Amino acid sequence: MISRLIDEIKKKSAPIVVGLDPQLKFVPEHILNKWYNELGYTLEAVGEAFYEYNKGILDNVSDLIPAVKPQIAMYEQYGIPGLVAYKKTVDYAHSKGLVVIGDIKRGDIGSTSESYAIGHIGSVELGGNVIKPFDEDIVTVNPYLGTDGVKPFVVVCNKEDKGIFVLVKTSNPSSGEFQDKMIEEDERPLYEVVANMVNAWGAESMDGDYSNVGAVVGATYPQMGIILRKLMPKAYILVPGYGAQGGSGKDLKGYFNEDGLGAIVNSSRGIIAAYKSDKYAQFGGEGYADASRAAVVDMLTDIRENAFV
Amino acid sequence: MISRLIDEIKKKSAPIVVGLDPQLKFVPEHILNKWYNELGYTLEAVGEAFYEYNKGILDNVSDLIPAVKPQIAMYEQYGIPGLVAYKKTVDYAHSKGLVVIGDIKRGDIGSTSESYAIGHIGSVELGGNVIKPFDEDIVTVNPYLGTDGVKPFVVVCNKEDKGIFVLVKTSNPSSGEFQDKMIEEDERPLYEVVANMVNAWGAESMDGDYSNVGAVVGATYPQMGIILRKLMPKAYILVPGYGAQGGSGKDLKGYFNEDGLGAIVNSSRGIIAAYKSDKYAQFGGEGYADASRAAVVDMLTDIRENAFV
Repeated sequence: MISRLIDEIKKKSAPIVVGLDPQLKFVPEHILNKWYNELGYTLEAVGEAFYEYNKGILDNVSDLIPAVKPQIAMYEQYGIPGLVAYKKTVDYAHSKGLVVIGDIKRGDIGSTSESYAIGHIGSVELGGNVIKPFDEDIVTVNPYLGTDGVKPFVVVCNKEDKGIFVLVKTSNPSSGEFQDKMIEEDERPLYEVVANMVNAWGAESMDGDYSNVGAVVGATYPQMGIILRKLMPKAYILVPGYGAQGGSGKDLKGYFNEDGLGAIVNSSRGIIAAYKSDKYAQFGGEGYADASRAAVVDMLTDIRENAFV
Repeated sequence: MISRLIDEIKKKSAPIVVGLDPQLKFVPEHILNKWYNELGYTLEAVGEAFYEYNKGILDNVSDLIPAVKPQIAMYEQYGIPGLVAYKKTVDYAHSKGLVVIGDIKRGDIGSTSESYAIGHIGSVELGGNVIKPFDEDIVTVNPYLGTDGVKPFVVVCNKEDKGIFVLVKTSNPSSGEFQDKMIEEDERPLYEVVANMVNAWGAESMDGDYSNVGAVVGATYPQMGIILRKLMPKAYILVPGYGAQGGSGKDLKGYFNEDGLGAIVNSSRGIIAAYKSDKYAQFGGEGYADASRAAVVDMLTDIRENAFV
């Protein structure tokens, strides 16, 4: 799967991913009111509004980008109807030829992690019917439970040619509370210990020059990005934290390898809620998807001009 | 919420929780075939079969136990129809008067963790309608992202009188890979560093003698259980790993406080798939729920006789 993602990145010259993380306050009023009128103030109305909102963005930016990353929490907040919108978004992104990275940050033990892996990137067989329940291409995984929690995802990756990004160093302010702790026996911070495990987990999952087992490293910690890039030479790095969270193109140099590959940078609200910012306010709510396209173009310019040496 | 759980534990003299973690191989054939015949080999058939299977168990054991803990992964594996069964199970358990612990192990950053918290233990307000999307009472939370990831759950706990159990030391064999690492500055293993944070996060969430912020500590590590019990005197401990994973009543002494409270022990397949084991095989598939009741009674005896000094 990572080789397919890389092909798409090269084809579009775009090492970026758009985070489809809808919030009620981002959805333009004309969409929200339409669905409230039709379905009342219900979870179903929110689900339909999210899906229409996402579709508008996908219709306007899909030719520019290789992948999208829906954050399942934003949908799960609205229960089953929200998750229906998540699944429809995954399918619609596929119909546009995009790689879908499900930001699910799951992680559990043994058979439980296996269930998450099968449900999201694998398939179930029922009386000869092969069904892919959520059908993302790549998902994010939380490593706190150790190899037991991650390995079942790797097994499914290998079986179905899918990918994972393991949380190594997250973009949030308090990520250091545990991740940065210096580990006595390794003489390294925890995030480097996890990075070494990412290498080990990914060694049997090579797909071209990179492994189907990648890592998440936030744009907000560029010095750590440089170290982690070198520590995990075969791992693709998913980089959240660009834009609204504070990272910019010049912070990203260290996340790429010399081949210009190795990283894919996510922006969520900076793209999907662009029309809410002063810079793109002229588009207005009706033009939200055009604003998103303009923001993607600007992000690509920033990254092409500043993130490569 | 923790005071309500404690009341139920005292009333039934049962510091246990039944893990409703359905797997296809556990569901008796008469239930599975009924739904395959009705709905074909579909995710919907699996969802209905899981729900009927759970209902049978709940009808037979609810008077003996204070709480159930559905593991959402087992449902999520079957996509939207699986999650519909999860939600129906939560609602049915509530109709039986049980506390519902959603084993979701979510954890993300800021607004994303907030979305999970609202979706599972909180409520959304849409045009004056207050809706509880999943409506569990307590959920499990992964701490790897630090305070940013946990605090939004605590905020919702405080607002809506709900609870969380934070993963501290999990029951799986490889849980030590990261959780047991000795942290230089703290001169403690990581799980103790997390335990101290559980105390900090829970300090403002007291509900009677205990906090609504509890911890997960596996039955499979009894020595650590003793230490963690003392380190987190106000945290209720959810103890997985009893039964099928290897823990037994005598391993559990250290998880309880002198008041006989402070811990709630989970058993999943040992209860819900009891009829598959030699000990309860005489019940057969048709009698699976009676086998579950017998297994609950035996578990209660083991814990009452062996887990208290």
